[in-house]
Amino acid sequence: MTDTIQDRTTDDPETAKIVLGPTQYGKAENHVVRIARDTDRHEIRDVTVSSQLRGDLEAMHTEGDNAHCIPTDTQKNTVFAFAQTEGVKSPEQLLLALSDHFTSEFEWISGGRWAAEEHAWERINDHDHCFVESKQEKRTAVLVTDGEKRTVISGFYGLTVLKSTQSGFTGYPKDRFTTLKETEDRVMSTDIATRWRYNSTDVDYDAIYRSVKQIMLEKFTDHYSRALQETLHHMGKAVLSAHPEIDEIKFSCPNKHHFVYDLSFAGIENNLETHYAADRPFGLIEATIQRKGAPTAEDAWMGISGFC
Amino acid sequence: MTDTIQDRTTDDPETAKIVLGPTQYGKAENHVVRIARDTDRHEIRDVTVSSQLRGDLEAMHTEGDNAHCIPTDTQKNTVFAFAQTEGVKSPEQLLLALSDHFTSEFEWISGGRWAAEEHAWERINDHDHCFVESKQEKRTAVLVTDGEKRTVISGFYGLTVLKSTQSGFTGYPKDRFTTLKETEDRVMSTDIATRWRYNSTDVDYDAIYRSVKQIMLEKFTDHYSRALQETLHHMGKAVLSAHPEIDEIKFSCPNKHHFVYDLSFAGIENNLETHYAADRPFGLIEATIQRKGAPTAEDAWMGISGFC
Amino acid sequence: MTDTIQDRTTDDPETAKIVLGPTQYGKAENHVVRIARDTDRHEIRDVTVSSQLRGDLEAMHTEGDNAHCIPTDTQKNTVFAFAQTEGVKSPEQLLLALSDHFTSEFEWISGGRWAAEEHAWERINDHDHCFVESKQEKRTAVLVTDGEKRTVISGFYGLTVLKSTQSGFTGYPKDRFTTLKETEDRVMSTDIATRWRYNSTDVDYDAIYRSVKQIMLEKFTDHYSRALQETLHHMGKAVLSAHPEIDEIKFSCPNKHHFVYDLSFAGIENNLETHYAADRPFGLIEATIQRKGAPTAEDAWMGISGFC
Amino acid sequence: MTDTIQDRTTDDPETAKIVLGPTQYGKAENHVVRIARDTDRHEIRDVTVSSQLRGDLEAMHTEGDNAHCIPTDTQKNTVFAFAQTEGVKSPEQLLLALSDHFTSEFEWISGGRWAAEEHAWERINDHDHCFVESKQEKRTAVLVTDGEKRTVISGFYGLTVLKSTQSGFTGYPKDRFTTLKETEDRVMSTDIATRWRYNSTDVDYDAIYRSVKQIMLEKFTDHYSRALQETLHHMGKAVLSAHPEIDEIKFSCPNKHHFVYDLSFAGIENNLETHYAADRPFGLIEATIQRKGAPTAEDAWMGISGFC
Repeated sequence: MTDTIQDRTTDDPETAKIVLGPTQYGKAENHVVRIARDTDRHEIRDVTVSSQLRGDLEAMHTEGDNAHCIPTDTQKNTVFAFAQTEGVKSPEQLLLALSDHFTSEFEWISGGRWAAEEHAWERINDHDHCFVESKQEKRTAVLVTDGEKRTVISGFYGLTVLKSTQSGFTGYPKDRFTTLKETEDRVMSTDIATRWRYNSTDVDYDAIYRSVKQIMLEKFTDHYSRALQETLHHMGKAVLSAHPEIDEIKFSCPNKHHFVYDLSFAGIENNLETHYAADRPFGLIEATIQRKGAPTAEDAWMGISGFC
Repeated sequence: MTDTIQDRTTDDPETAKIVLGPTQYGKAENHVVRIARDTDRHEIRDVTVSSQLRGDLEAMHTEGDNAHCIPTDTQKNTVFAFAQTEGVKSPEQLLLALSDHFTSEFEWISGGRWAAEEHAWERINDHDHCFVESKQEKRTAVLVTDGEKRTVISGFYGLTVLKSTQSGFTGYPKDRFTTLKETEDRVMSTDIATRWRYNSTDVDYDAIYRSVKQIMLEKFTDHYSRALQETLHHMGKAVLSAHPEIDEIKFSCPNKHHFVYDLSFAGIENNLETHYAADRPFGLIEATIQRKGAPTAEDAWMGISGFC
Repeated sequence: MTDTIQDRTTDDPETAKIVLGPTQYGKAENHVVRIARDTDRHEIRDVTVSSQLRGDLEAMHTEGDNAHCIPTDTQKNTVFAFAQTEGVKSPEQLLLALSDHFTSEFEWISGGRWAAEEHAWERINDHDHCFVESKQEKRTAVLVTDGEKRTVISGFYGLTVLKSTQSGFTGYPKDRFTTLKETEDRVMSTDIATRWRYNSTDVDYDAIYRSVKQIMLEKFTDHYSRALQETLHHMGKAVLSAHPEIDEIKFSCPNKHHFVYDLSFAGIENNLETHYAADRPFGLIEATIQRKGAPTAEDAWMGISGFC
Repeated sequence: MTDTIQDRTTDDPETAKIVLGPTQYGKAENHVVRIARDTDRHEIRDVTVSSQLRGDLEAMHTEGDNAHCIPTDTQKNTVFAFAQTEGVKSPEQLLLALSDHFTSEFEWISGGRWAAEEHAWERINDHDHCFVESKQEKRTAVLVTDGEKRTVISGFYGLTVLKSTQSGFTGYPKDRFTTLKETEDRVMSTDIATRWRYNSTDVDYDAIYRSVKQIMLEKFTDHYSRALQETLHHMGKAVLSAHPEIDEIKFSCPNKHHFVYDLSFAGIENNLETHYAADRPFGLIEATIQRKGAPTAEDAWMGISGFC
């Protein structure tokens, strides 16, 4: 990154100082369901895949010259073709195959962004070919390729957890706008949205995914939480400790407020039992836990919503 | 029900023939999270409850006279008060308690409609007070009270199932608008949305819920399906056979199309492996399975979306 | 409607008392964009159309015999074919054409349900072929055909209105669960969702639609509202007074609470100026206004969400 | 930005190389409706405001020490207090006031991120206090403060436009995965999502907003489009030409495919009239147009979804 915007566009007299900056384009949300039917015991992978290309795309924007414009329709066909020929070993591996294809096939394509979301299925009563969708969380994968550099960021969102005690919030500063009361017992709940960045592309993505999810669930349970911030840091530290393949992990987690409903108007006691679960506003806690000395990769995080 | 609209409104000279028909009002989507903390092993029930009252509400509409208008705010307070004092043994039992309260407390309230949606939680590693939301499907409950008559309709939606073989579609009529090819092997997938009507209010709602879900999953798997219609009928018949407490069950289920992606343009064979999962349009199959001779309850089904 | 469930199914020994009730099936949400290009000044109609057939469909459910199953794919083709040959004069007229086609073409189809949602466009600076979507509300249309009887229910949803004064709420009953304070000045806001039933199919649907919307907006403004119930009744009465083609109109409208934010903790006065707009729970007010002596049509209202 | 991750955390023996990276936290989506009632002609501003603080927040994460944790509840109170005392002159001005407050009041707060979404209202028939929501698009505003540096990024999303002719797509490269046919006449449609970065905080945000929207609508109409990329560049260049206060503008726009529905199976001609509007997959075109020589501000764009 540079400090000032450089000229990447052929100036035209009318708008001499207006230039084209970063661009990418492609086909988003190709919903691929890949069934492996080699034996009677079928396997299913269900992924929504987006493909976006980067490179020498300037004439397409400034002159309407599409000679470098690999149609988004072609990108779609390519996604389905690779799902068939390569299979979907993991979302990340499909993205890597797509990236290698586009950057090697077209000399003006220097990189791109490929993303996937996976919908998980489990067998119904261990049936060979009948499945029910799990829905507990959605798995995500992003690959950003810039020349030789390929950065994989995996994650998930929508894993909703709650602890009904062993959480409090005290010791915070008070000012004239403070009305919140301190508490040493409360409900704490969040939808875990997390993304982690690998320092390698040669990892067992499925196994690490399962492990990260399991670590987070365990670490959510094992302590008295003094704030969601502390709990997220605790979970992130455990993931990085267990997985040297991961250099960085980010969280973007709502504090889903559960207010004890005051029933004193009717003379009814409510000892942290009946809560009103509010929608909005909500707390929003975002944190990054990193491996010291590892290379940064700010560019790969661009365009991901709601992580700082 | 009558065949012509009757006069329920005091005529006024200006609009002598315009009358008030059915009305109801209340507070919708009170999100109650009830923690049972009697022992260290907490229990959680998480329900969104709507309360709507019916009765002599005419002056409120026609004259702005609120003497019969129990505020929706009071209905909200009442929902939370009953969640505290009665607990949430099941969504249906909470709705019944609310109905009994309002119809007995206020002479001009002759009935109403109470509805709930339950969000299911499971323990994290069997922990005493830490939970993760299941999300596989949402449980629903509706109670319609009309004087002495109380009708309970339970159900769920969003249970997504798929069979990757053992489904086909043949033998249908062709006309000049038909382009579909017959097939004896295809992916079949749907989001099960179902509602069933009890013939009693004295049942074990939680146990029956678990049983109905289990029956549906099993019955989805055990046959070659000649159409989603056949499969829904098969599931519904099994539920009514197993549960004499249920007089009627309805389904409203999309046929979620999974099209085999034709890759012949690139010379790639695709033997029912790689599919494009389409969003819209979708098939929409709706069916009712009933117990012969049981009383009908059309009124209780009014206002429920998308069931015929 | 009858009082007990009748036998419509051939009994089988195993489930002698379990019968098939109402069914319908078809293709939902066919998104049709019809451009009239007869002159350089193009016209656009943008409708999402659902088609569902009813009739002798029993063998399809009970025996897997598809001889009466006009594929949902054929229904989709038919929707687009009629959009092309008939045009989209109005959503209702397209639905009527589809109904007439299916019930006349196939002897076992005795009726059905056709529905549409229209997305409105306006010209950009009165341009001939460039448009911007309006989005203020969504227009809806439902046609239920039962033999010779065709019932059209039109409507819209999502028209969000607010009055910042000239609304109050007083004179309501108080009980032990009442905490609400009376007020003679408050913000009142709702999303108008309304459906009206025509007593004829030979009307100018577009003109009446525009008129109904305009009446509602005007009637929302012209009075001090003592409750949303009074305002809805006032609007509905005006529609029926102006439109003899309409026999019945229903509303399902949230009371979107705007709470004055109490800033006294900081010594700041808030004279009904700064409000917190809550999402949930919300008031939910549902009412019907009818023409006395008109025929009822309960069946046509089945399956429509949230109207009583 | 640096090239490797630095140590910002006090090491602990167990996890000596795991450090805390960027964090922020606050209260999201405070829905503020501000009525100006100084005269009988009321004014309304309706904004959803998020506040997140950055600074010395390490102990809160690593040690559960909340001495620096200004509660998200306090941030909420502050948002409403400032809406009352300052009014909502524009979303951007409210965000600037909040930023100045938090960074000046608390020495350990070095910056933060404040965001707003505005819901636009228009008067019903020019009424003094009755309004209808416009909904054509949603206005957005983001302020990122880092010490003395305050960067404002304004924008909107959901402005849906369509041209029914004067658009084509030709001249693109073909490979073995290409099946798309070239066309010189097609429907082009997109939902404009755009964000622009100001080079000053002393601008008339409301006036510029109106101007940018108007320029985009006009520039959408005035040319034959050879690709959505060309049209976005054309619109962006016009905005930067007209507004020297803006240094950078980004687009993230779907290409909403409208496929001509082939009715040849029924012998029906379809001359670009009847289209199927597809949901997914969709083209996704993202581009940046910048002022040469202006300073960059990559950090301010972090966390914004879907812009490259």
